[in-house]
Amino acid sequence: MKRREFFKSATAMTAGVAAATALAAPAIAQGNITWRMVTTWPKNFPGLGVGAQNLADRITAASGGRLTVQVFAAGEMVPPLQSLDAVIDGSAEMSHGAAYYWQNKSQGLSFYTGVPYGMTSRELTAWVRFLGGQEIWDEIYDQFGVQGFLSGDTGTQAGGWFKKELTGVADIQGLRFRTPGLGGQTWAKLGAAVTNMAAGEIFAALQSGTLDAAEFVGPYNDLALGFYQIAKNYYFPSFVEPGLATELVVSKAKFQALPEDLQAIVKAVTQAAYDDVASDMYANDPRALQALVSEHGVQVRQFPEEILEAGAKAASEIIADIRSNGDALTKKVAESYVSAFNLLRTRTEGTDMPFLAARQKYFSFS
Amino acid sequence: MKRREFFKSATAMTAGVAAATALAAPAIAQGNITWRMVTTWPKNFPGLGVGAQNLADRITAASGGRLTVQVFAAGEMVPPLQSLDAVIDGSAEMSHGAAYYWQNKSQGLSFYTGVPYGMTSRELTAWVRFLGGQEIWDEIYDQFGVQGFLSGDTGTQAGGWFKKELTGVADIQGLRFRTPGLGGQTWAKLGAAVTNMAAGEIFAALQSGTLDAAEFVGPYNDLALGFYQIAKNYYFPSFVEPGLATELVVSKAKFQALPEDLQAIVKAVTQAAYDDVASDMYANDPRALQALVSEHGVQVRQFPEEILEAGAKAASEIIADIRSNGDALTKKVAESYVSAFNLLRTRTEGTDMPFLAARQKYFSFS
Repeated sequence: MKRREFFKSATAMTAGVAAATALAAPAIAQGNITWRMVTTWPKNFPGLGVGAQNLADRITAASGGRLTVQVFAAGEMVPPLQSLDAVIDGSAEMSHGAAYYWQNKSQGLSFYTGVPYGMTSRELTAWVRFLGGQEIWDEIYDQFGVQGFLSGDTGTQAGGWFKKELTGVADIQGLRFRTPGLGGQTWAKLGAAVTNMAAGEIFAALQSGTLDAAEFVGPYNDLALGFYQIAKNYYFPSFVEPGLATELVVSKAKFQALPEDLQAIVKAVTQAAYDDVASDMYANDPRALQALVSEHGVQVRQFPEEILEAGAKAASEIIADIRSNGDALTKKVAESYVSAFNLLRTRTEGTDMPFLAARQKYFSFS
Repeated sequence: MKRREFFKSATAMTAGVAAATALAAPAIAQGNITWRMVTTWPKNFPGLGVGAQNLADRITAASGGRLTVQVFAAGEMVPPLQSLDAVIDGSAEMSHGAAYYWQNKSQGLSFYTGVPYGMTSRELTAWVRFLGGQEIWDEIYDQFGVQGFLSGDTGTQAGGWFKKELTGVADIQGLRFRTPGLGGQTWAKLGAAVTNMAAGEIFAALQSGTLDAAEFVGPYNDLALGFYQIAKNYYFPSFVEPGLATELVVSKAKFQALPEDLQAIVKAVTQAAYDDVASDMYANDPRALQALVSEHGVQVRQFPEEILEAGAKAASEIIADIRSNGDALTKKVAESYVSAFNLLRTRTEGTDMPFLAARQKYFSFS
C-alpha cells in the first residue's frame, strides 16, 4: 500500500465510524451468529491488519456462515486502544491487537507480545502452547472475563529509522526516538528521550524535527508509512522486539456459549492465522527492503556492538524489576517465561544458530 | 514413550491390520462423512504421529463430526511407504507423511520436505504460502489426482548418533551411516557408505555392528528409540535437514466434492497443525536432550568445520544436478525454491541471525 492510500483509507475509516456502528448489532437469525471484531490496525494494514481480516473471513467460511465475523478497523467502532474494553463491556465480541497494549491492566500481558532481548516467534509458540504460557495467560484474562489466543507475529523487527548514523551509546543521549512499550523503556535507560505516538503521526513528527528517529515494525509495514523520505539510516535488527505477537481476544462467556464445533473452528483458524501472518511478514519484509534500498536510497545499518551490549544490560534490568515488583500473576508469568526461555535458548543456540552460521559461511546455490 | 512400548505398539499395529481394514469402509450416514487417513508414522510417535492424530481429531471436532477422520498408523492399513498410493487408488482419502518419500514419483517433491543446507521451517512456509511454492506443488500432485498441504515441521534436526568421534572428512570414509533421501546423497558424496532402513530396524543394526552411525530426527524422537544405549556421540545440527516438513495429502476429487465449509476446515486445521507440531518439537527437543545428557551420558558434539564445508559443497552439487537434469516440473520447483531461498536468506541473515548472535553474546536473565 502506498503512503497516500494508507492515509486516505485511515481518513475514510474515521468518517465511516457512524455508519459502521449502525450495522453492528449482533444478529442471530436462523441459528447464525454475527460477531464484531474490533481491531487496533488500520484497514488493509500489511501483514497485521490483513491478517485480522483473513482470520475473520476464515472463521466465517469454515463455519459456513454460522459464525460470521465482521471486522472494524482502528477507529471504525472504537479508538484502537479501547479495543479490549469494547470486548469487556460487550460492545464487541472479539478484539485483534497486541497484548502489550493492555499492560496497564496487567504488566504480565507484555510477555505475550514480546520482551526486549526475549523470545523469537517459534520460542514464543513453544512456551505458550507447550510449556505452560497459555494457562497463565488465561488466569490473567479471567480477571476481565476474556480469553486470548496468539493470532500472528511480525518476526524479529527492524531497529528503526535514524536521521543520523549511530556510532555508540553517546549518540543516543537525548535522541528523540519514537519507540513504545518495554522497548521504549530499554532505549530510555540508554539515554534516549523516548516518546510514543500513533503510527499516523510519526511521519509528520520526523519531518517537522519533533523526532530524530522512529521505529515501527519492519520493511513491509514501514515502506507504506514513507519514513525513508526523511530518515535514511535503517537499522537492523531490533534487539527490543525479537518478535511481536498479535492476539485475538474473545469474550469468555460468549465463547464458551458457542457450540463446541464453533469453538474448535475459532481456535484452529486463529492458530492457522498465526502461521499465516508470520509467513506473510517473512516473505514480504525482504521484498520491501529491496525496494527501500534500490528505489529509495535507504542505507541499511547494524547497531554498534556497544549499543547491543548496553541494550542487553538495560533489558535485563527491566525484566528483573518486573520480577521483583510485579503483582502475583505478573511474577508468575515472568518466572514461567524465564524458565521456558532458558530451556528454549539451548535449542536455538545449540541447533538453529550453528546451522544458520554454517549455511551463511559455506553454502550458496551454484 | 519408552523404547519397549514403542516396539510393542509397532507389533500390535501389524497384528491389527486385518481388523482395522474391516472397519475402513467410508460411511455417509445422516450427512456425515468418514475419511480414512493413512500415515507413515507409528501410533503415538512423538511430535509427528501425535500431530497426525491431533490433526484428524481437530477436523472431526471443528466439523461437529460431519467429517470424521479415522487414523491408521504405519502398517495398520497399508505399509508406511504405500500411504500416497492408498490415496491415489482410493483405499484412503488422506495420507499424512513427508513429500520426499515420493520422490520416485517426482523429484521435485523433495523441496516440500527439506533440502540439504536449504530452508528453515519459517523460510519454507514463507515460500510455500506467499512466494509461489504451493502452486507448483499443486501442479506436481495434479498428475496423481491429489493435493498436498504442509502439516507439521521438526525444525532443524540433530546430525546423528556416531559410535566414534569425527575429527574431519577422513573419518567419514566408508562409515556405515543410516541417513535417507537427499541428506543421504550428501553424506555419500563425503565418502560415507550410506544405507536406509526403517526406524524400527536402526537400533538392532547399531547393536550388531551393521551400522557405525545413524540419524533419525532429533532428541524428542531419538530418545524413544534408544540409540543412546549404543552410540554416545550425538552431533548437532544436521546440515542436511534444516527442517523436515510433513504433509497432509488429500484426494483432490473428494476434497473438491466437500462442501466449502468443510474444505475451509481441513485447510485451517492443517495449517494450525503445522504450527502445533513445530512448537511441540521446539518445546520438547531440549527437554529430551537434557535427559539424554544428564541421565544417559550422551556427549553432545558439533561437526568439525571441515565437514560442514565439504557438506555444503556436496549439497550444492546435488541441487545443481537436479536443476540440470530434472524433468520440467522438477526444474520449475527448483528454480522457484532457489529464487525464494536467495530472497529469504537476506532476512534470516540480516535480521534474525544478528539478533540471535547479540542475544547469545550479551543477554541473560539476572
